[in-house]
Amino acid sequence: MGDKKGILLISDGLGDRPVKELGGKTPLEYAKTPTLDRLVESGMAGLVHPYKAGTRCGTDWGHLSLFGYDPMEFYTGRGSIEAYSAGLTLQEGDVAFRGNFATIDDDYCVIDRRAGRISDPEEIRALVAEVNGMEIDGYKLLLKPLTQHRVAVVIRGAGLGGRLPDTDPGTACEGSKMVNPAAETNWKGTAEDRKTAEMLWKFLEEINRIWKKSPINAKRVAEGKLPANTILTRGSGKAMVPPPFTDTYPGAKVAVIAGDETITGIGRMCGFDGYCRDTFTGGFTTDYLGKAKMAMELLPNYDLVIVHVKGTDLCGHDNLPLEKVRIIEAVDSMFAYWLEQEGSENWYFAMTADHSTPCCRRDHSADPVPSFMAGPDVRTDSVKEYGERACSEGIIDQYTGAQLMATMMDYLWLSKKYGA
Amino acid sequence: MGDKKGILLISDGLGDRPVKELGGKTPLEYAKTPTLDRLVESGMAGLVHPYKAGTRCGTDWGHLSLFGYDPMEFYTGRGSIEAYSAGLTLQEGDVAFRGNFATIDDDYCVIDRRAGRISDPEEIRALVAEVNGMEIDGYKLLLKPLTQHRVAVVIRGAGLGGRLPDTDPGTACEGSKMVNPAAETNWKGTAEDRKTAEMLWKFLEEINRIWKKSPINAKRVAEGKLPANTILTRGSGKAMVPPPFTDTYPGAKVAVIAGDETITGIGRMCGFDGYCRDTFTGGFTTDYLGKAKMAMELLPNYDLVIVHVKGTDLCGHDNLPLEKVRIIEAVDSMFAYWLEQEGSENWYFAMTADHSTPCCRRDHSADPVPSFMAGPDVRTDSVKEYGERACSEGIIDQYTGAQLMATMMDYLWLSKKYGA
Repeated sequence: MGDKKGILLISDGLGDRPVKELGGKTPLEYAKTPTLDRLVESGMAGLVHPYKAGTRCGTDWGHLSLFGYDPMEFYTGRGSIEAYSAGLTLQEGDVAFRGNFATIDDDYCVIDRRAGRISDPEEIRALVAEVNGMEIDGYKLLLKPLTQHRVAVVIRGAGLGGRLPDTDPGTACEGSKMVNPAAETNWKGTAEDRKTAEMLWKFLEEINRIWKKSPINAKRVAEGKLPANTILTRGSGKAMVPPPFTDTYPGAKVAVIAGDETITGIGRMCGFDGYCRDTFTGGFTTDYLGKAKMAMELLPNYDLVIVHVKGTDLCGHDNLPLEKVRIIEAVDSMFAYWLEQEGSENWYFAMTADHSTPCCRRDHSADPVPSFMAGPDVRTDSVKEYGERACSEGIIDQYTGAQLMATMMDYLWLSKKYGA
Repeated sequence: MGDKKGILLISDGLGDRPVKELGGKTPLEYAKTPTLDRLVESGMAGLVHPYKAGTRCGTDWGHLSLFGYDPMEFYTGRGSIEAYSAGLTLQEGDVAFRGNFATIDDDYCVIDRRAGRISDPEEIRALVAEVNGMEIDGYKLLLKPLTQHRVAVVIRGAGLGGRLPDTDPGTACEGSKMVNPAAETNWKGTAEDRKTAEMLWKFLEEINRIWKKSPINAKRVAEGKLPANTILTRGSGKAMVPPPFTDTYPGAKVAVIAGDETITGIGRMCGFDGYCRDTFTGGFTTDYLGKAKMAMELLPNYDLVIVHVKGTDLCGHDNLPLEKVRIIEAVDSMFAYWLEQEGSENWYFAMTADHSTPCCRRDHSADPVPSFMAGPDVRTDSVKEYGERACSEGIIDQYTGAQLMATMMDYLWLSKKYGA
């Protein structure tokens, strides 16, 4: 850990396009953000490309980029991300899947894709305990529950492949049979993929055998609920095991605060510590002040605290520009809180986003994201307010997310020198 | 050689951050630079990333980048750089080391890491002549003196490796034994690295045998001085042999003027001609007008003359903003001299830096460097003065060092056309 302190706020999907009902302004331009404007004026701003100019990022891809990585080199899909989100630490060679607890009949026909929306943590814990860590033919099964009916599934062992069909027959397919990828012939897979399909099915058969007899399911059935007697898998992929952040920034200690487990999971994948609290919802309304206060509690033990706010993205997806304005103003108040703290004049502040989610698009876009960095010796440019138009004239305009992170780490004196 | 002429001044570590005692201006913004401002106004400016945005460059890495190269592809450390600085031309497969003449006792314990700061060029030349070019087991030793007690060391032969421990036991280790890397077991090396360690030690044993009996050392001892009876090596690395500059810019003839041998060495590595003079110190005070005049003498024979000034970097390292201002003003006078010369209205002028060295940081930073290019048909932008803030709005803002060089070579009509 170094001597300097930084706070980076990632406002998911922050960037937007001109909105008619806001008089042609973007939500960020329309919002009253006196604190953010002051920071922008005192530092340097720019429209940042989370990955690269013209690339439309998903949340995971965008965050990995902002954290300084090139996902193109190792991204394998959501299976790995959910495993990290659940708290599993993957090893090179593991294969990860997204899973649902589900209900099937004796012929493996799907009765309910979510096992009657099973959600009781006690029930889930007990079921998982009955099968977790199971070993077959030298391969090991790892399960870790996620929210509600979701579960991360990992197979560990030698010579596995990551590309196999989903056992889940699909979202609207109740009544269809679960797919046994080992029996299917109409997919192209390597020998390693085939081996993995075979092992996955062996594990799923064993799980079904055990769970059919589980007292938890007997109790559920007695209560008129559907039993959870299988796991439907999808999104298979070889484990993502990127080099730790400290390979690039030796000694750096980073914390991530988020309501959304995906974000803390991505942080853990990079070697950050992830923090959440029940009041952090990852939704439209979250405990903004709670997040700001937690950042203050963590700051003494970290070089950089990253705070994630999800609401701005949700407003983009739902085309709610005024709600997006409201959330941006709540974020402004978080910075106001931080600037009131003793010693804050020595800290570095930055704000950016993992991608734009323009309200009119109702989805992520490739538009670069308004960003800034401020702090004691940060360079100043001519940008005086925080908004998409204004930022385009700043010093960090056209930076990539990884370059913004590199700049932050450089101001925190945690960058390596290339050459001598 | 083409018809057009260019002068590029590299002001080492020029870029800075706002300095309180300069009223929040950077040294470049604070300095009175009427000539540079005039050139900036007549041409195009920008904050340039010597390597890439967010990367903190060492001097060698920054210069290789400015010269159009990607050091990531071939950089192996200071051993090679010093060999070129000494005037050696490396071949693919050579291994180079930084060396010190030193004094050891009969048990190879270090008595003095600098052989009593030996510096008499005659003595050094004679000692080197006694062992230079020595061959053992088909391998060859090449030595070339550098300034003071320093010497470049190269081993040439088949199947050598570049990663071995230093024989120098360390900066504060007088009394410790020289490290024999061939006898050490606690380092991981390839068979090639091990072979190189073995050969290096054979050469060092032979050098010690010869120098113990050298009349030069007998004379030194008689005068009460310490004998130079070994070479302590460090910074081993396979030879950097980048493709010549003319591979990218066919026919281009480039000269480099510098007081610092590292810079002329890097230039030679790229196929440039290096020029120095005793009055060019590479220090706080140098012969600015002498450098400017030498550039004029060389210009008829070159397409591009690169002039290096070191002082700005030293001021950053020592936190001397006002001294940095003074040196920048001296650089302004160099351009004033050039603009007075007959024909200068047809020449292209540019200025940049290998990295920023902010006074407050006392070290290199990743901040991009204020840069400009001017000349008869160079595009104009809105930037009217030379400074960090102003440059961020210019045409070449966000260029990399290699792109700036490419642009310079393009204005000199020396660029290749890609495609037809």
